[in-house]
Amino acid sequence: MNTSSAATVDSLSVNHWHHSFDVVVVGYGGAGACAAIAAHDSGAQVAIFDVASAAGGSTALSSAELYLGGGTRIQKACGYDDTPQAMYDYLMASNGPQADSEKIRSYCDGSVEHFDWLEKLGVPFKESEYKQRAMMALSDDCLLYTGNEKTQPFAALSPPAPRGHNLKIKGDNGGPLFIKVLSAALAERNIAEFFNSRALRLVVDSTTEQTKVVGVVFRIDMQEIFVEARSGVVLCSGGFVMNQKMVAEYAPQLLRCTVPIGNPGDTGSGIAMGVEAGGVAINMHEGFVSLPFYPPASLTYGIFINQQCQRFINEDAYHGRVGAALLEQRSERIYLLLNVEDYGDYEARSYLGAPVAATGDTVAELAEELGLNSFLLERCVESYNHFASVGEDPQFQKNSEWLKCLNGPLVALDCTPGRGVHMPYFTLGGLKTSVIGEVLDRAEQPIAGLYAAGRTACGVPRRGDGYCSGISIADASFSGRVAGQAAANNKN
Amino acid sequence: MNTSSAATVDSLSVNHWHHSFDVVVVGYGGAGACAAIAAHDSGAQVAIFDVASAAGGSTALSSAELYLGGGTRIQKACGYDDTPQAMYDYLMASNGPQADSEKIRSYCDGSVEHFDWLEKLGVPFKESEYKQRAMMALSDDCLLYTGNEKTQPFAALSPPAPRGHNLKIKGDNGGPLFIKVLSAALAERNIAEFFNSRALRLVVDSTTEQTKVVGVVFRIDMQEIFVEARSGVVLCSGGFVMNQKMVAEYAPQLLRCTVPIGNPGDTGSGIAMGVEAGGVAINMHEGFVSLPFYPPASLTYGIFINQQCQRFINEDAYHGRVGAALLEQRSERIYLLLNVEDYGDYEARSYLGAPVAATGDTVAELAEELGLNSFLLERCVESYNHFASVGEDPQFQKNSEWLKCLNGPLVALDCTPGRGVHMPYFTLGGLKTSVIGEVLDRAEQPIAGLYAAGRTACGVPRRGDGYCSGISIADASFSGRVAGQAAANNKN
Repeated sequence: MNTSSAATVDSLSVNHWHHSFDVVVVGYGGAGACAAIAAHDSGAQVAIFDVASAAGGSTALSSAELYLGGGTRIQKACGYDDTPQAMYDYLMASNGPQADSEKIRSYCDGSVEHFDWLEKLGVPFKESEYKQRAMMALSDDCLLYTGNEKTQPFAALSPPAPRGHNLKIKGDNGGPLFIKVLSAALAERNIAEFFNSRALRLVVDSTTEQTKVVGVVFRIDMQEIFVEARSGVVLCSGGFVMNQKMVAEYAPQLLRCTVPIGNPGDTGSGIAMGVEAGGVAINMHEGFVSLPFYPPASLTYGIFINQQCQRFINEDAYHGRVGAALLEQRSERIYLLLNVEDYGDYEARSYLGAPVAATGDTVAELAEELGLNSFLLERCVESYNHFASVGEDPQFQKNSEWLKCLNGPLVALDCTPGRGVHMPYFTLGGLKTSVIGEVLDRAEQPIAGLYAAGRTACGVPRRGDGYCSGISIADASFSGRVAGQAAANNKN
Repeated sequence: MNTSSAATVDSLSVNHWHHSFDVVVVGYGGAGACAAIAAHDSGAQVAIFDVASAAGGSTALSSAELYLGGGTRIQKACGYDDTPQAMYDYLMASNGPQADSEKIRSYCDGSVEHFDWLEKLGVPFKESEYKQRAMMALSDDCLLYTGNEKTQPFAALSPPAPRGHNLKIKGDNGGPLFIKVLSAALAERNIAEFFNSRALRLVVDSTTEQTKVVGVVFRIDMQEIFVEARSGVVLCSGGFVMNQKMVAEYAPQLLRCTVPIGNPGDTGSGIAMGVEAGGVAINMHEGFVSLPFYPPASLTYGIFINQQCQRFINEDAYHGRVGAALLEQRSERIYLLLNVEDYGDYEARSYLGAPVAATGDTVAELAEELGLNSFLLERCVESYNHFASVGEDPQFQKNSEWLKCLNGPLVALDCTPGRGVHMPYFTLGGLKTSVIGEVLDRAEQPIAGLYAAGRTACGVPRRGDGYCSGISIADASFSGRVAGQAAANNKN
């Protein structure tokens, strides 16, 4: 990892602690805020530090949708019978071979309680559903589908339910509101807050049989400040998407995308500090990738094709699954083909940014303009139409509600990475932690006094192609809360 | 990493060195042997250790093809004008975004010299070419294509040349011969050899400003034996393919394959020891995967299809590239469709192990037996035939020599992982090293006294879909030789 973080500091070399707390939280985003609140409410004296000059982290920049389920108050009010088991089955399937069954179990079983905990802190939710196909509810409605629950192959594996919980606020303003509520909760609790504080190294006591983490060195006002953590340190300092060198080394495919999602502090410094103390970074090659092609939802009537004139995904899938599939294509160009009538208000409403590559009254005309083989493209569209006309998609099981013949006039949008299309991304690798947030060493033993949460840890979301909106913030707040509690209860 | 390896040992706690050498090589496979020879020939007093009771490592189990080029004696004798630049361009392209340009440059520029060095040690090569499409030359002929040089998209990027150098021995017996020659070279040099010796931990001197590696603790005869390395330690203890827990954690997709290629010592212990000393493990998610569908070469006339009745690769590609593409398919089943006349002596000669899933006089018949949509499968075959009949493949640019209409009677082989097909695999992640084999820390600074080579390091080969046979053994011997020399020249 290419970070400036150096090794750990031996506690014997610490002459003087500038501050002393039970629990020290590094990073004041969603994970850190929840860790601090939970640690405090478990009886600990808590301090929270951030390198920025204000609270928020990447959570404040997000929509703060929360992927929760198993029967939340809102799900029930909207008439959905979701269960922890259905949620578990979905998350296990969508996280593929990397799925951490213990973490997913805990997350699903604790999801309703977590929702209630957040609501009690003051996070507002409306008893309503947003029924359109969208990346986020721009109304103040709450519940929406933010993953692949209704699409194949997942719909066949577990009963679908919407689990995205949007905050009760109009526009894309959930993140600032979420942080505002959490910050108020911290202020009420008299939790010490330090900003403009860069965590440099963990302080480690190696005089005892088992090495333990007992503090953190920060750089504040050009000084090295030693802060004792009598019970534990919780690393909540985000992922590494802003460290382009680390991304190039661990997840180079992500560099084909365009917009790293995160705040400037997402440099992997927390991951590096954990590794220096004996932790292990896992799943470092994975990332979330979005191809934000809806709204307008009408673009879902189109088909994505690669240079081989092949479709490669059910287009009704979540934008993150489409983005992941797109990056897998061995193809110089990717296009979205659709009837001009479904192009609709694309330019006014889309986040996609894909330029029009060609238009044509016939497929052959389109193929010529795109430089694709017209025989192959015609047959691809013919095949699609053949089945769409009877409401079927035997290739990719796109839901019949989105099947519609492509009869032209047609338009092709160029969705090739690097040619104008907007492809946000962030990382899904981090420190290996136990189900309560303890950072684990190579032998899978907890490192005493060290916890991690949010994107600094490798949590519930582990695959780009199985990602669902709201899972990162929900996992961050959930894992932060759990880790904060564990740190407070730790007798170091 | 789940290995039993613990942290490093402080040199202050070492009361007595049982042995002392300039250079200590951990692991006696191809990389270790070459490291030991080179270190000795650079003037060092050298010892080599292996956990097994004999030399060889995974090299002895391999075919010991060597991927070398840029104008070797054999290439010239066979009439090929290969250049270091053509080899460099090919390896850069085929290793994709992970390619290490500095390592590849050094490897290509030094390739002829390395060939000569090996030949001088006594490794025998015949001035002849093996012209068939095969995974290995079972004759004693030398030169063969072992990658994707002649296939698209690579053929268009750099002038193709065969670079696989098979040893002068009949059958698949290159590995034992290669190790025999290298072992003889070690014996001649009076290099100390220790077997049944398990490396446990590196010994680190932290009294100096820069931490340095000064020895290794081995377990030999139930005793902990402390071995001083006055100049350096070279870790050559293989990859981690035999550590199923590590594979599950870092490269879970590989577990769909069937046969790990390696020796029981490939547990990642060398990688773990390097990480404990401050090293960084990179590219841990990548692996080589083979779908060994030739010989007989006639199977190349067939087409691979997924459950969507789509082809996904030019079937004239190297078996490793086909295997990588196969694992990427979002498909429950993968089939190889071919004319019965090209099935030929499949059962007698193939390593594939794929069972016959269906036979039929027509595509429709085959589709029915396979449970595939006959409309889609017919159109897929029609498309292929349409172009094959005129020697073209606009979808995947399969070379015209392998294009042949599928006119039936037809047979389909089930190439789905887990259904009988043979899919060997091994790992391509390891310690980040400099071009001369120094293990690098998080800040990209060399860790004094510590080197790594072969699959313990992350070397030239970095992608399954760009792999070529012989690159692992050639890279191991090359990187071992370079690291051994660097360790000998190190003034610790």
